[in-house]
Amino acid sequence: MRKISESTVRRLSLYLRFLEQFDAQGHTTVSSAELARRGATTSAQVRKDLSFFGSFGKRGLGYSVPELTGRLREILGLKRTYRVVLVGAGRIGGALAQYPGFRQRGFHVAAIYDKDPRKIGSRWNGLVVRDVRHIASDLKKEPTDIAILVTPAEAAQEVADQLVQSGVKAILNFAPIRLAVPADVAVKSVNMALELETLSFALANR
Amino acid sequence: MRKISESTVRRLSLYLRFLEQFDAQGHTTVSSAELARRGATTSAQVRKDLSFFGSFGKRGLGYSVPELTGRLREILGLKRTYRVVLVGAGRIGGALAQYPGFRQRGFHVAAIYDKDPRKIGSRWNGLVVRDVRHIASDLKKEPTDIAILVTPAEAAQEVADQLVQSGVKAILNFAPIRLAVPADVAVKSVNMALELETLSFALANR
Repeated sequence: MRKISESTVRRLSLYLRFLEQFDAQGHTTVSSAELARRGATTSAQVRKDLSFFGSFGKRGLGYSVPELTGRLREILGLKRTYRVVLVGAGRIGGALAQYPGFRQRGFHVAAIYDKDPRKIGSRWNGLVVRDVRHIASDLKKEPTDIAILVTPAEAAQEVADQLVQSGVKAILNFAPIRLAVPADVAVKSVNMALELETLSFALANR
Repeated sequence: MRKISESTVRRLSLYLRFLEQFDAQGHTTVSSAELARRGATTSAQVRKDLSFFGSFGKRGLGYSVPELTGRLREILGLKRTYRVVLVGAGRIGGALAQYPGFRQRGFHVAAIYDKDPRKIGSRWNGLVVRDVRHIASDLKKEPTDIAILVTPAEAAQEVADQLVQSGVKAILNFAPIRLAVPADVAVKSVNMALELETLSFALANR
């Protein structure tokens, strides 16, 4: 398959959300123009994004909502559920552990880890915070696809190394450092200050 | 100025972080190759990103760390502070209100709003949660640049309309809907499930 850019993947995620909304409204077909309008993009962009993955829709008839929904879920890897562990039981970690949008998409936060003895053993959203020193042995018994890393910067690389050695293949990283991982491990970094900087840039360059 | 893509702006934010790290380590100059290595990009990309904003650095000598730091802060609109209001005193809102990275960059969360009578009046990180019904009159007295919207989807557009009418020019939107705003208002949407979907895509398409 051709290398797909992250911006294409993000648009596919949005198209999936729009299709679910069209479905909820009782629509059975949708045109590239309608998808484009919702996503503030162009019909040509929608058709190009989808063309990476084969042929969809019929000229003049548009896309079948259930068919394209199913295909996008498949492309995005959403036809299965994922076991997710969260490392770092702080404020952001707590908010993420209870984020309803994850479970709806099949991402199940199954364990939370921390190194703070005052947090270990406490209950969080039905889960008991575990000691991060046990993470490698736990993951041997509980194979895990995705980890969410919400530790301070200083601790992040060491935890990431353990996660990778334990077979985790994807990390959502909130720690403000660039993680070094093998090429077959996907890392997506989220930095809230950086999001605000795209806005301060917009304000400064109007 | 040419239209700058969001991915360019994000790289500029990262370069600024790397420059601050180089500065903390006592470096006074840095090459495009060193910036590229930290950012997992190429020297050519670094030079291209910076070239949008004029001429920096000297061939063979690299960039002056303090000079490029100052210039990037200026480009990113970080030479001033921003008054920020947060709407939605839930879990994510609480985590964001206390996020240390915001204040470090000059983003000051100065007020928090909610519509829940049980939350209004309670103290959050030194701020008293205010009644969202007063937001328009408050913002008249307290001009505000940026709002962070963490309401449920149903409430988001109505609040956004009030924010825009009150002069807010930039919104960081965590509500899972696409906001309709005038062209001169910048909106950046953050969707945590979408971030995880870039990872499930990577896992499904290896």
